[in-house]
Amino acid sequence: MRTAFYISDGTAITSEVFGHALLSLFPTKLNHVTIPFVETKERAMEVKVEIDAARSEDEGRAIVFHTFVDNDLRDIIASADAMEYDFLNYFTTPIERELGVAAVPKTHRTHSMHEKTYDSRIEAMNYALANDDGGNMKNMKDADVILVGVSRSGKTPTSLYLALQYGIKAANYPFVEEDMDNLKLPPEIKAVKEKVFGLTITPQRLSAIRNERRANSRYASTRQCRIELKEVEMLYKKERIPYLDSTHFSVEEISAKILAETGLQRHKY
Amino acid sequence: MRTAFYISDGTAITSEVFGHALLSLFPTKLNHVTIPFVETKERAMEVKVEIDAARSEDEGRAIVFHTFVDNDLRDIIASADAMEYDFLNYFTTPIERELGVAAVPKTHRTHSMHEKTYDSRIEAMNYALANDDGGNMKNMKDADVILVGVSRSGKTPTSLYLALQYGIKAANYPFVEEDMDNLKLPPEIKAVKEKVFGLTITPQRLSAIRNERRANSRYASTRQCRIELKEVEMLYKKERIPYLDSTHFSVEEISAKILAETGLQRHKY
Repeated sequence: MRTAFYISDGTAITSEVFGHALLSLFPTKLNHVTIPFVETKERAMEVKVEIDAARSEDEGRAIVFHTFVDNDLRDIIASADAMEYDFLNYFTTPIERELGVAAVPKTHRTHSMHEKTYDSRIEAMNYALANDDGGNMKNMKDADVILVGVSRSGKTPTSLYLALQYGIKAANYPFVEEDMDNLKLPPEIKAVKEKVFGLTITPQRLSAIRNERRANSRYASTRQCRIELKEVEMLYKKERIPYLDSTHFSVEEISAKILAETGLQRHKY
Repeated sequence: MRTAFYISDGTAITSEVFGHALLSLFPTKLNHVTIPFVETKERAMEVKVEIDAARSEDEGRAIVFHTFVDNDLRDIIASADAMEYDFLNYFTTPIERELGVAAVPKTHRTHSMHEKTYDSRIEAMNYALANDDGGNMKNMKDADVILVGVSRSGKTPTSLYLALQYGIKAANYPFVEEDMDNLKLPPEIKAVKEKVFGLTITPQRLSAIRNERRANSRYASTRQCRIELKEVEMLYKKERIPYLDSTHFSVEEISAKILAETGLQRHKY
């Protein structure tokens, strides 16, 4: 099996995301190795040796995705016996021409706490944790978005992803069995109804997820799941709450869809 | 101000990460617009019109980063009056040559729940939430890593990031004031000491963070922060617990450093 390396003088997150997106187009199985914080010549030499070694052990030379600010470090990595993709630099010159300004390379330029939105992402994450699962109804007015839905419909992971990645303050509130007889929005949420976004899911998928948590319980039964989901979807329609079915979507996809539908701005750049 | 667009028939996360990393090299201020899930010709035409409109309102044409699987949709976006970067496709041919196989474009190939590691990331996130702040000492043996440190030293955001991004089960345990007289690892954690990783921070930064939470409290005083940090660092040294100073690092950087130091494998590909 050949090896794909993701290497950087920073976190290597950009190399990982780019390389992963590119390699996922191919059916070939690869061994993946991420090496962040290659910040000295000595370390770069060690990494070059590791890349070279990957060739002799494998069925071909390694594939290397790298982003370096320091040219000397980059040159050491580029001297390894591998197919190397210096993918950011490749596009730098055309952007310089287009914008009419020179690039200003900075170490740790992305994914560092010097990103101007860093503090707002951490603040949003603390908000999401404090307001998970209806934890603090009096804070609902501070939310950018309030996710509602039955237990295990994807509210918590989506709230945390929106916060950590995009600095969006997402509260979430669960509709539980006891609410179902006369389902309505709690007054604290009704007061800021324009912020509410609903999640739903198929009874089959919900039952499977709940069974992992409490096997063979009434809570996990398809019948109970169906009753709860029907009530909740009726409420969404009655209150004209926008909602989506999370059954076939990842947290990343649900988050992107919520942003697209609500028009909320990412605090990312 | 010119506009940068990040467009895709999927989440557009790859376009965002790549475009953001590239544009962060430049001092130019830009307006950023992400448009995910462009899945029909009608929608692509609307987006083309939006890109064209960005030119006339701005000081130059838009800069467009896009990833499309469907060639017809791509062609519509590419026909807009903009500088466009079809950055994944650019690198596809050389990879095909290197691997000796053709690319197999699939919609929603990345950032979807069909990624084989998706379930493990959600499971890890549920684990991190259930085992946040020493929440469940009997689960410590199931952790991939146990982060320890004083209150507000960065344990919770790092645990959640490791889980959501990398599928790593990270528990965390806080050392609180009451522990300080005779600081030691709780027996449940001592039993799996090889999994423990410590965080520390400067007293000044810790005091600033705590002051945001409880202004002018003893808890937030530099003196109290200094006492707690000194005890905790002594424990790290005595127990030979690897640790890092989170003061100048983002959650992304702390996570990447922990992975590099512990050798934990990302459940990502």
